[in-house]
Amino acid sequence: MKQYAELYKKELLDQIVPFWEKYSLDKENGGYFTCLDDKGHIYDTDKFIWLQARQIWTFSNLYQEVHKEVAWKEIALLGAGFLEKNGRDTAGNWYFSLNQKGNPLVQPYNIFSDCFAAMAFGALFKIEPKKRYADTAKTTFDNILRRQENPKGKYNKIYPGTRNLQNFALPMILCNASLELEHLLGVEQVEKVTDSIVDLIMNKFYHKESGLVLENISETGEFVDSFEGRLLNPGHAIEAMWFVMNLGIRKNDNALIEKAEKIMFQQLEHGWDKRYGGIFYFMDFKGHPPQQLEHDQKLWWVHLETLVALAKTYAYNQNPKAKIWFEKVHEYAWNHFRDKQNGGEWYGYLNRQGEVFLHLKGGKWKGCFHVPRALLEVWKTLENGF
Amino acid sequence: MKQYAELYKKELLDQIVPFWEKYSLDKENGGYFTCLDDKGHIYDTDKFIWLQARQIWTFSNLYQEVHKEVAWKEIALLGAGFLEKNGRDTAGNWYFSLNQKGNPLVQPYNIFSDCFAAMAFGALFKIEPKKRYADTAKTTFDNILRRQENPKGKYNKIYPGTRNLQNFALPMILCNASLELEHLLGVEQVEKVTDSIVDLIMNKFYHKESGLVLENISETGEFVDSFEGRLLNPGHAIEAMWFVMNLGIRKNDNALIEKAEKIMFQQLEHGWDKRYGGIFYFMDFKGHPPQQLEHDQKLWWVHLETLVALAKTYAYNQNPKAKIWFEKVHEYAWNHFRDKQNGGEWYGYLNRQGEVFLHLKGGKWKGCFHVPRALLEVWKTLENGF
Repeated sequence: MKQYAELYKKELLDQIVPFWEKYSLDKENGGYFTCLDDKGHIYDTDKFIWLQARQIWTFSNLYQEVHKEVAWKEIALLGAGFLEKNGRDTAGNWYFSLNQKGNPLVQPYNIFSDCFAAMAFGALFKIEPKKRYADTAKTTFDNILRRQENPKGKYNKIYPGTRNLQNFALPMILCNASLELEHLLGVEQVEKVTDSIVDLIMNKFYHKESGLVLENISETGEFVDSFEGRLLNPGHAIEAMWFVMNLGIRKNDNALIEKAEKIMFQQLEHGWDKRYGGIFYFMDFKGHPPQQLEHDQKLWWVHLETLVALAKTYAYNQNPKAKIWFEKVHEYAWNHFRDKQNGGEWYGYLNRQGEVFLHLKGGKWKGCFHVPRALLEVWKTLENGF
Repeated sequence: MKQYAELYKKELLDQIVPFWEKYSLDKENGGYFTCLDDKGHIYDTDKFIWLQARQIWTFSNLYQEVHKEVAWKEIALLGAGFLEKNGRDTAGNWYFSLNQKGNPLVQPYNIFSDCFAAMAFGALFKIEPKKRYADTAKTTFDNILRRQENPKGKYNKIYPGTRNLQNFALPMILCNASLELEHLLGVEQVEKVTDSIVDLIMNKFYHKESGLVLENISETGEFVDSFEGRLLNPGHAIEAMWFVMNLGIRKNDNALIEKAEKIMFQQLEHGWDKRYGGIFYFMDFKGHPPQQLEHDQKLWWVHLETLVALAKTYAYNQNPKAKIWFEKVHEYAWNHFRDKQNGGEWYGYLNRQGEVFLHLKGGKWKGCFHVPRALLEVWKTLENGF
């Protein structure tokens, strides 16, 4: 597996990072353009907080983990300045999107904006230790914990009481965000937050009888037979499993790592499209038609996060099954998402058959994050071990 | 074209109506099951107000327009009783969805629930003239007009002022709903509501330079270069054009009918997939990647509403172009959406290549409405003229 380390490193540093350095910087207004076509041309100038924050995180992390490249720190600061100036409402909640100049377009209904902002400023503080970056990360994180019970606030359209569901995404992101912010939160808070979340994920969202991870469960942790309750998102579950593996390594908890490995393989085997290859985006627990019209598409992040989970598994115990699956998913991802013609960032959206159907490198939901993070994680994991 | 009248009538009465009569009735709780697989089996029991109301409308309309079948009136009443009892909050706004027993699941964020409820009770009043049905239709319609400026109310996530957009859907539905409710609203109110809307649609949403109908425009009626501003929905625009044709007939305004015809052909020619056939679901005004991952799919309602628009055009002026296009869309629709194996209601969702990828006859957004309404409209239009 060692030979993949070099390949992933080369792709990251020769293709992916230069693409974003070259095409995404808004030097006039600050922040980044993320709506870039396959030639790198900007086709839309709106700025989505998820993606602004994630790009700050990525360039801070490259500076921290790869080498101290001054240009990378400057790119991180270009986004941070823009977000500090424009990103929050008066209560400190992060908007969902801004226009090119930074005027708010969409209200702070989406708590993942806050999650990625906390991670961005936490990572930036590591490479540029200004107190205000740490403060932004910490107050944002506290705000997330405070909003945790009703993350959408007044924008929540669910009628209370009839069918209250818990959603998988926030606990999952908090596993990752807590670890990312440990230098600011301290060991005790990280343990307090993650212990209960890991229990929730591994014993409630993980539905033991079926071996599948549910996206939504009842307040008491039960399966609910409805569109939301039947929803499966294999990529989400697999990504969460490598977050849990990281927590297991940190706690030296082999049983937890092995349970995460088992659950990861179950989602992968269940989510793999035996007809066309690749991993489905959404599935229905009972095999009924999902409500998501895009359910059978193959998305970049699903496959890249799976490669990270498989690399980590292999690094942990050299399980030959991890190698077989890594090579299978690697083949699929490199042959389908990678842009052989133009190079640069990878494509993101394939139809079920594996054909690119959106000729973009970035958009409203795809920015400078999953591809570079996964390439870096796979490279470092296969080179240095877990 | 006359020979199609018999075909559409037969399909409506032998396949579509019996399917919903047989599989959709919840005799225990009232209302209808709409989540039905290709064999008619119920795969989910939630009740979506759009679809409950539309089925009341459809069966009331069949009773009114086809023949006085007592069973059809009973089916309409089965839904109406359920909605009267469970459908509204204390302010008279219609919820988005209820569970099987009628407890609210999703709040009244979506004004189209109200639009279809007004149409349902308006149509029911025609066949069962109880005052309370008329009252429900009228108060709901007044409520829609009152909420018109900010239909989503507190659930509106747009930050005010940066980029205020007007959306096409509500004006479009109001064209149709006003005519449907003329027996309750009176001629004067219908004219007041529709005159300004027709102007808005035909002179603002219709972008003269490009010949395309925009889904979202600025407050002053301009094109806005953003994801929402570039959005095209050819099926929506084509459906709106037959609503406008109906208004033109009512007003004896030939220029309006001919403008609607021209605009309809422009959307159809632009929206037709020259590679695989069928009409795209969403497109981007500038040809950029749309944000909707389902944009290149082929949806049943788009094609059925197009057949209605073409039948009306042909009935109006025997334009041979309308015949050519009718036969082309007819071939596509009957060969792809119709279920040759199981019969009954048609399929709804095809991938770009034209393959059924959701094996359902109804779901969260597809119920007993577009197929029967279009079959009836085509049949009656080709048999009797406009």
